[in-house]
Amino acid sequence: MSFEFVASENALLLEQERNRRYPNVHFGRNVVVGQNVSIGEGTVIGNHVVLHDHATIGKDVRIDDGAIIGKKPLKSKASAMTGTKELGPAFLGNGCLVGSNAVIYSGAIVEDGVLIADFASVREDTAIGELSIIGRGVAIENQVRVGRCCKIETGAYITAKSAIGDQCFVAPEVTFTNDNFVGRTQERFKHFGGVTMQKGSRVAANATILPGVLIGEDALVAAGSVVTRDVPARMVVMGAPARVVRPVDIDQLLPYESETKPGETP
Amino acid sequence: MSFEFVASENALLLEQERNRRYPNVHFGRNVVVGQNVSIGEGTVIGNHVVLHDHATIGKDVRIDDGAIIGKKPLKSKASAMTGTKELGPAFLGNGCLVGSNAVIYSGAIVEDGVLIADFASVREDTAIGELSIIGRGVAIENQVRVGRCCKIETGAYITAKSAIGDQCFVAPEVTFTNDNFVGRTQERFKHFGGVTMQKGSRVAANATILPGVLIGEDALVAAGSVVTRDVPARMVVMGAPARVVRPVDIDQLLPYESETKPGETP
Amino acid sequence: MSFEFVASENALLLEQERNRRYPNVHFGRNVVVGQNVSIGEGTVIGNHVVLHDHATIGKDVRIDDGAIIGKKPLKSKASAMTGTKELGPAFLGNGCLVGSNAVIYSGAIVEDGVLIADFASVREDTAIGELSIIGRGVAIENQVRVGRCCKIETGAYITAKSAIGDQCFVAPEVTFTNDNFVGRTQERFKHFGGVTMQKGSRVAANATILPGVLIGEDALVAAGSVVTRDVPARMVVMGAPARVVRPVDIDQLLPYESETKPGETP
Repeated sequence: MSFEFVASENALLLEQERNRRYPNVHFGRNVVVGQNVSIGEGTVIGNHVVLHDHATIGKDVRIDDGAIIGKKPLKSKASAMTGTKELGPAFLGNGCLVGSNAVIYSGAIVEDGVLIADFASVREDTAIGELSIIGRGVAIENQVRVGRCCKIETGAYITAKSAIGDQCFVAPEVTFTNDNFVGRTQERFKHFGGVTMQKGSRVAANATILPGVLIGEDALVAAGSVVTRDVPARMVVMGAPARVVRPVDIDQLLPYESETKPGETP
Repeated sequence: MSFEFVASENALLLEQERNRRYPNVHFGRNVVVGQNVSIGEGTVIGNHVVLHDHATIGKDVRIDDGAIIGKKPLKSKASAMTGTKELGPAFLGNGCLVGSNAVIYSGAIVEDGVLIADFASVREDTAIGELSIIGRGVAIENQVRVGRCCKIETGAYITAKSAIGDQCFVAPEVTFTNDNFVGRTQERFKHFGGVTMQKGSRVAANATILPGVLIGEDALVAAGSVVTRDVPARMVVMGAPARVVRPVDIDQLLPYESETKPGETP
Repeated sequence: MSFEFVASENALLLEQERNRRYPNVHFGRNVVVGQNVSIGEGTVIGNHVVLHDHATIGKDVRIDDGAIIGKKPLKSKASAMTGTKELGPAFLGNGCLVGSNAVIYSGAIVEDGVLIADFASVREDTAIGELSIIGRGVAIENQVRVGRCCKIETGAYITAKSAIGDQCFVAPEVTFTNDNFVGRTQERFKHFGGVTMQKGSRVAANATILPGVLIGEDALVAAGSVVTRDVPARMVVMGAPARVVRPVDIDQLLPYESETKPGETP
């Protein structure tokens, strides 16, 4: 009997034992459950799901077919992001929804009520605040923080080292960047920096945001813009390169801010 | 014996019974077949495919590894699209091809001879006309209609409430939008509207189309454009914001239309 | 007993036989191994992986959950790319890393030490040079060549018939195109042509490159540009349509080229 066969027997619970260990959890077919996985009551797990070792899943979670929770990163020898920080478990809070074929890495902390849609990825060393929506096919790279009640829509790319405040909106196919040196020179490793979105700011469809840009509170980037410099609070920017064109309409500001002045830096 | 175990036994056919119930259907390994699934003769189903309850699959269909047919929507409490309309089954016509890891929801109607490529999604309450191609990773959102003989290429994003006529072409990485309020205000729910493409119209690579825009018959949007207003029939628009630059070349018009005047509204 | 059942028994090895045939290979759960598959020692294969007939996998490879190796193409009757060339096996060199749910087709040649990230596709009739990185969700279409030590980042779309030299960089969400006729006329089949990137050239985030464009050695396309004509070596182009704005900074050129003149065609 080969080493591999023994290892797989140890690593995985047989179906019957599994159902005894996880009462009031519904498992689809061919689910793989690793060691020391925790699953709250009322959770429903689809077919062909993989829960890697130490994954921690809350109550009343729904995880759809083919999703993978607690994956360990792949590291290329040629990768720009070095370091082999010890990763905690993948953590999914109560009431989360995880779409088909989504991938959530070890070291991702996903708070209560978050929706991670089909084909989305959430990498290691990330945190997603409660009630946020991570859309279909979105990539949340490593070292990203997303606040509460955000919406990040289909196909948006949130590059490593980005920070997104509460109630932000990122429209479909938006691209964030973090490397002004475009992959060349050793110098670039000192300057890597993602995009910062302050509370309530919004980026419209297919915009491109250059490295290190700060988007101020409740500001709005128009669709298709290329943003090369910081965006003042509560202003709309547009074009390539994007320029300030007007204040955000008062009725689109977050309620508590509606009496502050447009353009004011928070 | 737990409730879950019993439920899964009822919901799924054992392999031998399955082969008896579906003669002349080829099943790969670890296929999950739900209740009341119908599969036509000559169909070939890959490995790790999931056919959810009531999925209706035609003859001579090919469904590749890891595809999921008949998935029920995930609904976030924070989602803009409300309502819990009763969904019909997922329907795949004769001769359809479905790529690896593709996801087709309940309430999607896919007509004969359609190709749905790897990683594509077709959401609930949609219809795809015969012989159309839905490219790799394309997202067809809910409440979308796609006509016959269309090509929607890799990574295009077709937002909810869009309508695409026959013989249309959508190039790679095109982004449609449906919310002029960019996720803010209750007012926006009244105005949600996708993009309308009339018969034979075309959108080139990585263009962005703003909410509610109508693209006229046989019109052409140039690559990388940001389209903010309606596009006249048989005209080329270009730029950000896109402007009319010339008529579409006569030899690129659909045959039956070659005697009508450029710019004429159909 | 149906034909299908017999076929699947013949086509697939049972788990025990498999472990005997592939010593020092680690298999996850529910792995499907076709006929005449070769796997080098030290390779680690995740859960729900499919290795199709004739797939050839090197030593010390890691293949993550849900990946599919050696898939046969789907051909729509309406596809522009015709011909049914006989495909060789999928080939993965030593030390390759393959992400979750990635799909590598028959006839793809992936050299030693390449990383293919989660959700990436590598189509048939392609070659990827050693140590290159194919990012998350990247689509490498058929008839593409990628050199050594390239990085092609998240969501980039590399259209059919493109050629990428050594040490090139393609940023997130970049779109290549190959059809100036935008899917119309029979004439277009004569002119199909992807993008050519010469050694060390770079394309920044969300740029769109039109069909047949050549990007010269060590040139740089700025973020969000729409490139309609050839880019001279070692120059930066920017805008829509993109124009030459300055030479690439000397310290960002590849070392051996730093004494040649900017703008010189190699």
